[in-house]
Amino acid sequence: MSGIPHLTVDLDAPGVSRGHLVVPGGVDRGELSLPVFSLNKGEGPRLLVTGGNHGNELEGPLVARRLIESLPETQTCGTVIVLPVLNPLAVEAWSRNTPLDGLNLNRVFPGRAGGSVTERIADAVSRVLLPMADTVFDLHSFEPTWDFPPAATTHPIADPDLMARTVRMAEAFKLPLTLVWDYNDTAGMFDIVAQNQGKVFVCTEFGGGTVGADNLAIYEAGVRNALIALGLIEGKAEYPTSRQPKSGQTLETHPHDELKSPAAGIFEPRCSVLDQVKDGDLIGILHPMDSLSAVSIDIRAHGTSIVVAIRSGAHVHANQGVALVARPPKN
Amino acid sequence: MSGIPHLTVDLDAPGVSRGHLVVPGGVDRGELSLPVFSLNKGEGPRLLVTGGNHGNELEGPLVARRLIESLPETQTCGTVIVLPVLNPLAVEAWSRNTPLDGLNLNRVFPGRAGGSVTERIADAVSRVLLPMADTVFDLHSFEPTWDFPPAATTHPIADPDLMARTVRMAEAFKLPLTLVWDYNDTAGMFDIVAQNQGKVFVCTEFGGGTVGADNLAIYEAGVRNALIALGLIEGKAEYPTSRQPKSGQTLETHPHDELKSPAAGIFEPRCSVLDQVKDGDLIGILHPMDSLSAVSIDIRAHGTSIVVAIRSGAHVHANQGVALVARPPKN
Repeated sequence: MSGIPHLTVDLDAPGVSRGHLVVPGGVDRGELSLPVFSLNKGEGPRLLVTGGNHGNELEGPLVARRLIESLPETQTCGTVIVLPVLNPLAVEAWSRNTPLDGLNLNRVFPGRAGGSVTERIADAVSRVLLPMADTVFDLHSFEPTWDFPPAATTHPIADPDLMARTVRMAEAFKLPLTLVWDYNDTAGMFDIVAQNQGKVFVCTEFGGGTVGADNLAIYEAGVRNALIALGLIEGKAEYPTSRQPKSGQTLETHPHDELKSPAAGIFEPRCSVLDQVKDGDLIGILHPMDSLSAVSIDIRAHGTSIVVAIRSGAHVHANQGVALVARPPKN
Repeated sequence: MSGIPHLTVDLDAPGVSRGHLVVPGGVDRGELSLPVFSLNKGEGPRLLVTGGNHGNELEGPLVARRLIESLPETQTCGTVIVLPVLNPLAVEAWSRNTPLDGLNLNRVFPGRAGGSVTERIADAVSRVLLPMADTVFDLHSFEPTWDFPPAATTHPIADPDLMARTVRMAEAFKLPLTLVWDYNDTAGMFDIVAQNQGKVFVCTEFGGGTVGADNLAIYEAGVRNALIALGLIEGKAEYPTSRQPKSGQTLETHPHDELKSPAAGIFEPRCSVLDQVKDGDLIGILHPMDSLSAVSIDIRAHGTSIVVAIRSGAHVHANQGVALVARPPKN
């Protein structure tokens, strides 16, 4: 029930390779085989595309599958490795975390060889796949109870050169939003491990966590745009149409830009994502549900900003996040 | 810990009344107090509006709250009783069923006085509130993993006169879809109990089960349209705008109109709700996720129909429903 993580095929072989990344077994379960694809067309960028990091974000696996179908027709150089589902145990459960050990895969990188199954997945990806790539796209979505526009995101990176290259790569998706997300809870995230190795890492957040045909077309176009920017495929990058404006904006957000619920109750959104708000504008209303005479509480904007995420409806606890706003970068 | 269900206020008193519907305690928990509102403006229709029947469908409670705020300004006659949350235990858990007893409130009507808490809620509503109304609007939503347009729905009713009046009432919401839903699993549903007493009962299904500001405006307009049709408030009924077309259509659907997943995997929707499809058109694709060489399976339309519900993305089991189509009524 042990062993070392390995590939069942040589992903560096010329042309198409299909096989599995084998995650060794441990005390909690036997080995896992994660399907993996690569297309090596010689010199050029080395891109790793991953999906299914969180099991309730399924746009990524679907866009990854579409990529596998289209690359043999479109890729002109370099190597693209695609792992559509990083965490099949969470995907099968439609759960953010792995049910077996309760861990969030995107908080345990670079993983641990002797750890529980989530840590062993992170270890296998970090040790076997990450060294093969210079650029990583990790295809996420927002949780189902949030509204969020299709976006390419990154956390702030200390190295200014890597930061500039990462933002440029993120903007190349030409999605409605490129977001520089200053976030406190980044320990164990996939991007931090990759960036520490000098790699360009873009985390896409493809909408509100439910998969619709219209949005999937936007996501697919975004990934295609990024591959064109890398020179991996030919074509003209275009802002994906559909209901989104034919442009994109780059914004940044900080921990104090999260609006919290003032009490327990049902949150009612009063604005939509990408709405611009001024100081005092109504973002949403918190309705205590235990009494109809309890006063509903307005949640208002502090300063001019743009709503990038808004909870789409759930019973919330006091001090739970209900909206996230952002602003244009200062420089 | 027992007793009989009762109201803490006289909802028939003239003007506004606010109080609670008290659901007696039982062996599983103590009594529950459900906030309830009424506005009695004399002769006219007697309407009961309920929300929060399922705890993960929160548009209803929010629209019910808006109604409570607006009625004192707008209602001209009759009586409107509003119970925003039928099942607070499920709402607090954001769960379809009641966590305490695992029961689906909308399958245990008319309830049972000595039963578990879900059955006691149904009993209290059936015995105390239902007799006070001649018309009922129960404000539901679709589950978060489905896409569904704002719709007013009814099951087929044996009595042709009540059926005609019910469809007319449903169409008065002027939502994008009025759906006559022939459904096998109706035992214990709220509407069946109400219709057996000769009442007009409309079940609204407000979109895909996540609450957004744009859609909430449509839902609110739909309920307002229905109140205008009842003569309870004044105003001009208009098709709610936003991204939906300014019209509505009445369709019917039967158990064989549900498309099932041919295998376990991730369902990828390839069309949107209200799309018209012809025989053989692609509805979606089922992707087995255990191997990249496993063939993805196309799920295609049987005959000309209109997609009314499509799963928005989840890991599905074999034979699980992934889409529902409908057709114009034959007569």
